[in-house]
Amino acid sequence: MRQHYSESISKLISYFSDLPGIGPKTAEKFVFYLVKQNKEYLQGFSQTISDLIDRIKICSICHNYSEKSTCSICDNSKRNKTVICVVARPQDIAALEKTHEYQGVYHMLGGVLNPLEEVTPDKLNITQLLERIKKDKSKEIILALNPDIEGETTSLYLKKTLQPLNVKITRLARGLPMGSDLEYADEVTLTNALKGRREI
Amino acid sequence: MRQHYSESISKLISYFSDLPGIGPKTAEKFVFYLVKQNKEYLQGFSQTISDLIDRIKICSICHNYSEKSTCSICDNSKRNKTVICVVARPQDIAALEKTHEYQGVYHMLGGVLNPLEEVTPDKLNITQLLERIKKDKSKEIILALNPDIEGETTSLYLKKTLQPLNVKITRLARGLPMGSDLEYADEVTLTNALKGRREI
Repeated sequence: MRQHYSESISKLISYFSDLPGIGPKTAEKFVFYLVKQNKEYLQGFSQTISDLIDRIKICSICHNYSEKSTCSICDNSKRNKTVICVVARPQDIAALEKTHEYQGVYHMLGGVLNPLEEVTPDKLNITQLLERIKKDKSKEIILALNPDIEGETTSLYLKKTLQPLNVKITRLARGLPMGSDLEYADEVTLTNALKGRREI
Repeated sequence: MRQHYSESISKLISYFSDLPGIGPKTAEKFVFYLVKQNKEYLQGFSQTISDLIDRIKICSICHNYSEKSTCSICDNSKRNKTVICVVARPQDIAALEKTHEYQGVYHMLGGVLNPLEEVTPDKLNITQLLERIKKDKSKEIILALNPDIEGETTSLYLKKTLQPLNVKITRLARGLPMGSDLEYADEVTLTNALKGRREI
């Protein structure tokens, strides 16, 4: 505890220090920034945090955070319900939505398989995905997991688990990212780019 | 605005993005960390922010943040009221208190002179310092400002302003920090260390 600050300031410093990647020095900076703000701003900030308690629900279909029992994407009649894009985190949905390319729906796993951190298949929304595929008669499942060890493992596991359902399973393309330099691309990325080459 | 998140989540992301040094990506990480916390935790966090509104006052003597009209240091009868250590920010008081070396009191300027950012002498608690020195018949004023351009300018300005009051004015020693390597010390630090050498 930072005994050299008054109680409310120490308490807020300790709350901010809990945030991922934030140490006590940065937390101090946040608090002294906030102390200088006006009453309305602080009320708004405080209210928005307490709003998370009552207002944030989990969409009963895709398991993303939502303010209603089903999220705006699952509710949207224009979205193609037979194509499900499987992601690990809500941030991934936001990233994909920014492209304005995808017209299907999503399924939030809530993480990726990671035995070392005790994330086993039963901790992820996998059973729910299986039920959903059966119920909605899905045509395609796009696995949009990060191209790293955990993401690959999870993709492989999902591929095995979903295969009996006779549904098309795809994953996002691997290759050179835009603006990159061939000279500095790693071998795996270049191999993927070669294997995935397309006629133009 | 991050239109791809629900309203309360977007709002909280934008509040966190206001914090110094925090971009939207980090703010997102904070929000998704918080969403996973329990009700009591979020209530506590929210309450602590709104507590800043009513509970945090400015100490009428030293101008540091306090929960009473005078802070615990100014209230402490064991502290030597005739020695005032002048600092720029509340964090500096906390840093000095951690040494357990200093028995005097503090005066928080609220910043350092910086004409480019329109911090002129009237924006700092300098008149209050002058009045306090006269009233308390201070014996020593320790200038504990950062050894950088703004800190030096402010120290020089304070020295000029306080000189007519006939009070001893000192500043924190300059020299080699503990654990440093002579070989890599910069010239100014080494010059200061030579000039300030002491018999052992």
